[in-house]
Amino acid sequence: MKPYIHKVQYYETDKMQFTHHSNYIRFMEEARTYFLEQVGYPYKRVESEGIFSPVIGVNVSYKKPTTYADEIEIEVKIKDVTLARCEFEYVMTCRGEVVCTATSQHCFLDEAGRPVSPKRKNPQFYEKMLSLCQK
Amino acid sequence: MKPYIHKVQYYETDKMQFTHHSNYIRFMEEARTYFLEQVGYPYKRVESEGIFSPVIGVNVSYKKPTTYADEIEIEVKIKDVTLARCEFEYVMTCRGEVVCTATSQHCFLDEAGRPVSPKRKNPQFYEKMLSLCQK
Amino acid sequence: MKPYIHKVQYYETDKMQFTHHSNYIRFMEEARTYFLEQVGYPYKRVESEGIFSPVIGVNVSYKKPTTYADEIEIEVKIKDVTLARCEFEYVMTCRGEVVCTATSQHCFLDEAGRPVSPKRKNPQFYEKMLSLCQK
Amino acid sequence: MKPYIHKVQYYETDKMQFTHHSNYIRFMEEARTYFLEQVGYPYKRVESEGIFSPVIGVNVSYKKPTTYADEIEIEVKIKDVTLARCEFEYVMTCRGEVVCTATSQHCFLDEAGRPVSPKRKNPQFYEKMLSLCQK
Repeated sequence: MKPYIHKVQYYETDKMQFTHHSNYIRFMEEARTYFLEQVGYPYKRVESEGIFSPVIGVNVSYKKPTTYADEIEIEVKIKDVTLARCEFEYVMTCRGEVVCTATSQHCFLDEAGRPVSPKRKNPQFYEKMLSLCQK
Repeated sequence: MKPYIHKVQYYETDKMQFTHHSNYIRFMEEARTYFLEQVGYPYKRVESEGIFSPVIGVNVSYKKPTTYADEIEIEVKIKDVTLARCEFEYVMTCRGEVVCTATSQHCFLDEAGRPVSPKRKNPQFYEKMLSLCQK
Repeated sequence: MKPYIHKVQYYETDKMQFTHHSNYIRFMEEARTYFLEQVGYPYKRVESEGIFSPVIGVNVSYKKPTTYADEIEIEVKIKDVTLARCEFEYVMTCRGEVVCTATSQHCFLDEAGRPVSPKRKNPQFYEKMLSLCQK
Repeated sequence: MKPYIHKVQYYETDKMQFTHHSNYIRFMEEARTYFLEQVGYPYKRVESEGIFSPVIGVNVSYKKPTTYADEIEIEVKIKDVTLARCEFEYVMTCRGEVVCTATSQHCFLDEAGRPVSPKRKNPQFYEKMLSLCQK
């Protein structure tokens, strides 16, 4: 699994000269998207097959600042999958140092926004997620 | 008509210490939203009555930088309304000086995304817009 | 202490029709800024008196979705202040329901980016923070 | 010169299901950054050699909507370079169709924020820009 690379843009920096902390939440989404693409289940396909998986929680620990033009390497893992939710874990490094670690939690909804079991709604996707899970 | 006030947030600044230029496009949207609320036609109502009015063009001239905690006062005017499109104009000032001027152009679409005449689809809204137009 | 009100903008929604989760991190910053203003210690003053207080962690729990034009009421509390860091807590409600709860952790740095004791660097600010702390 | 590719992220869409118009201003910055890297003059180097080149104007024409996971190909050209300013032009295509065209204007400032002649301050950079200019 190749890590995702995010190159920090000027518009992502703030007046302290560093990458604004809110952007890391977006980098997590970018890396998650990339991860799902690599495993053959792009999130666009997940949605088109009837499952929506909004974020219900994030926990982020900022270790070191990054700045304009830095390349942040993001490793993504699935840490947990149940019939009701899943959890992703992120480790971000820059020039060999860990700059940020994070997790995100997600639920499973159908097209109407009601909770849905991924095992029933889309067994293939559910099995794929389970097989990738690294507790 | 009261001007809209946007107070610059830390996350809107960049490493040059100033408000990043991309954010002014968002301030324009905030000020347009506020303007439509004040004239009794919140954009939420416009949409719920069947007209969507996406941005088809923007022209922005940045005159002076602003920074964290600055209060930008934004005056909005409708400059043109036709059966196919409309144009808004924005003058932004901070501490009495003009910091940015801009215009935005918008078309009119129905729920299905097809061009629609606002005069036919929603005459009340169209008349309101015409009455506010200051060429 | 008045709660901060954030009105959700069109640019903060996503294709699921809801406020994108990353924006709540920014609402937290807006509410924190407003809180510090109300207690007479705007963050701009904190910085100008030599203390920078970057975010070192956030924990966010998304309870219910919000959407365009919703008014989110945000209550802010200081939960902890030590010589090395502080923690803020946020409760966000919309139409009387809790939509999001969160905390953020911050450290204290001097102009050169080195850890600094707020008690030594700026006793007045430190005492103010302590007096507001609600463990 | 390779075009820059921006893959639209979920957080860049809005409740109309499309990429929010404000983001194209950021895609322009990303593409400009990539262009300068390719010609051997990354903007980070431009700044480190003493020239800051803030945006003083943008003109954007939105032709067709794009949405989540779309790959937008952005071609960048330098249209004008003088001792006081320069202009970039952008053509964005998606699935072979032009979705957006734009220009941005920039001035030249020194470290203290004063207007500066790029020819005097950094002749090598100025000559490079001139050689790439396609009026």
